[in-house]
Amino acid sequence: MYQMKCTKCGGVAVVNMPQHRLKLCNEHFVEWFPDHVARTIHRHDMFQEGDRILVAVSGGKDSLALWAVLQQLGHITEGVHIHLGIDHESYSDRSQEHVEAFAEKHGLSFQVVNVAETYGHGVPALAKTTRGHRMCSACGLVKRHIMNRIAYEGEYAAIATGHNCDDEAAILMQNTLHWQADYLRRQAPVLPQVHPRLARKVKPLCRTYERDVAAYALVCGIDYIQQECPFSAKAQTLFYKEILNKLERHSPATKQRFYVTYLKAKEEGLFAEVTKEDRVYNTCSRCGQPTLAGDLCSFCRLWEAMP
Amino acid sequence: MYQMKCTKCGGVAVVNMPQHRLKLCNEHFVEWFPDHVARTIHRHDMFQEGDRILVAVSGGKDSLALWAVLQQLGHITEGVHIHLGIDHESYSDRSQEHVEAFAEKHGLSFQVVNVAETYGHGVPALAKTTRGHRMCSACGLVKRHIMNRIAYEGEYAAIATGHNCDDEAAILMQNTLHWQADYLRRQAPVLPQVHPRLARKVKPLCRTYERDVAAYALVCGIDYIQQECPFSAKAQTLFYKEILNKLERHSPATKQRFYVTYLKAKEEGLFAEVTKEDRVYNTCSRCGQPTLAGDLCSFCRLWEAMP
Repeated sequence: MYQMKCTKCGGVAVVNMPQHRLKLCNEHFVEWFPDHVARTIHRHDMFQEGDRILVAVSGGKDSLALWAVLQQLGHITEGVHIHLGIDHESYSDRSQEHVEAFAEKHGLSFQVVNVAETYGHGVPALAKTTRGHRMCSACGLVKRHIMNRIAYEGEYAAIATGHNCDDEAAILMQNTLHWQADYLRRQAPVLPQVHPRLARKVKPLCRTYERDVAAYALVCGIDYIQQECPFSAKAQTLFYKEILNKLERHSPATKQRFYVTYLKAKEEGLFAEVTKEDRVYNTCSRCGQPTLAGDLCSFCRLWEAMP
Repeated sequence: MYQMKCTKCGGVAVVNMPQHRLKLCNEHFVEWFPDHVARTIHRHDMFQEGDRILVAVSGGKDSLALWAVLQQLGHITEGVHIHLGIDHESYSDRSQEHVEAFAEKHGLSFQVVNVAETYGHGVPALAKTTRGHRMCSACGLVKRHIMNRIAYEGEYAAIATGHNCDDEAAILMQNTLHWQADYLRRQAPVLPQVHPRLARKVKPLCRTYERDVAAYALVCGIDYIQQECPFSAKAQTLFYKEILNKLERHSPATKQRFYVTYLKAKEEGLFAEVTKEDRVYNTCSRCGQPTLAGDLCSFCRLWEAMP
């Protein structure tokens, strides 16, 4: 039987990463993974030593692996978990339990924002009652609002999210298939802080394949929630991920190339810069967060619309 | 059994074109198709009444359908067929026969350039002996060179090729997956004349799905060569077409949206303009065509390299 050999030691390789021209054994993979994330952090100047990082932890493999790695790399982290109020198969309760167990095991601290307890309704009820917002977009809006609030209140230097290369490539494909100029100009490993109350956002796993994050979680014994969000089955991004994996099978490293050559082309000035007037933010009269809309921010308008 | 109804007359529809929000019966499809091509010609200002158009005819469905439609629309056309010297299953001979039969049936005139007779070797021999050129790129180079020459010698206003929407979307996908800035800036329904000896190129079928071109060829009784080029099986574009058709099945009109929103985004200034110095062309010392390379153009260098 053919056995892959570890590129570093010649031992039995357990992961094959053609996009990095590496096959690694268990030991070298566990060594390589945090280094690789550290290089991504450094390459995109995500944050400095001593910065306090707020890690958005859902309880899934990506965010828990990210948290583990940041901790291991010596960064100062605290977690924030948003309990979305998704009752189906106790999805939200179980997600939170995974975060709790992980934090306890690793001696990490985190806070929970329970959407229903804090604001009166969970995300499914919110998305159901308010028209014009589909579940995923309402959920995204709620999460962004809460993360910005927590980061501002806690004076964190940045919010780190677990978006991996597959996530980023799928979003890029979606934006490319529709040639959405604004999104194509904006998508990046780092979204800079544009307002004191709109935090800097960083994606340290953006150059790491989903499969490799899963492998890392597995070999490190990270116990994450394996169930997908019950509302995600119809999500477009899953379809685009499938397409990208088909491309990847046909031509290994395609996902990485697609994302990385995009970043490079952008850096080299492919897209024309838009000379916008400086954005003038209003302050939401209800929550105090900045908004480009009128008196109320989109988040508060969402709640206003509730019966 | 469910029968589609013609959007125009309520009769039995034979084609369904969700990208145009149309289902059409045989009669209305035959009426609609040339109109649709005429709108594309007009929209992109491809050529004017009275212009002499050189149609590049391979003998396949796209180029023959294009030729038929241009003729029907009253444009002045002449064909050029390039016999590539592909012997496998007499592919090139049979292609030429299809062109001959079509031209005779429709009273159209055309000329043949036989690569082997004119230059000493067919394209397969050329591509095989010269390194660094794969078959399809060598073939493309040869065809471009010959078409430019014929268009210049015959003083045609433009060369029309049969590239359909699937072709354009596949090339766009290829360019996007690698974020090839030059190609992304350049791809267009019209490539303007940049030098007296480098002809204007137009693609009147660029907004028409391949399937609909095939349907048109079928209902009009156009007898085209159905065999694909024996070297195209491995062509990347076929794989990208397959991917795009998968996207299309998942979300109808995706191919068109991908291509058309790209054109729109480009028109609206998504890409930064490159301030290049004016291109200074050398004149190839062998063939007299302009070249950005040194003494010999790429075409002549290809032949120079032959033993």
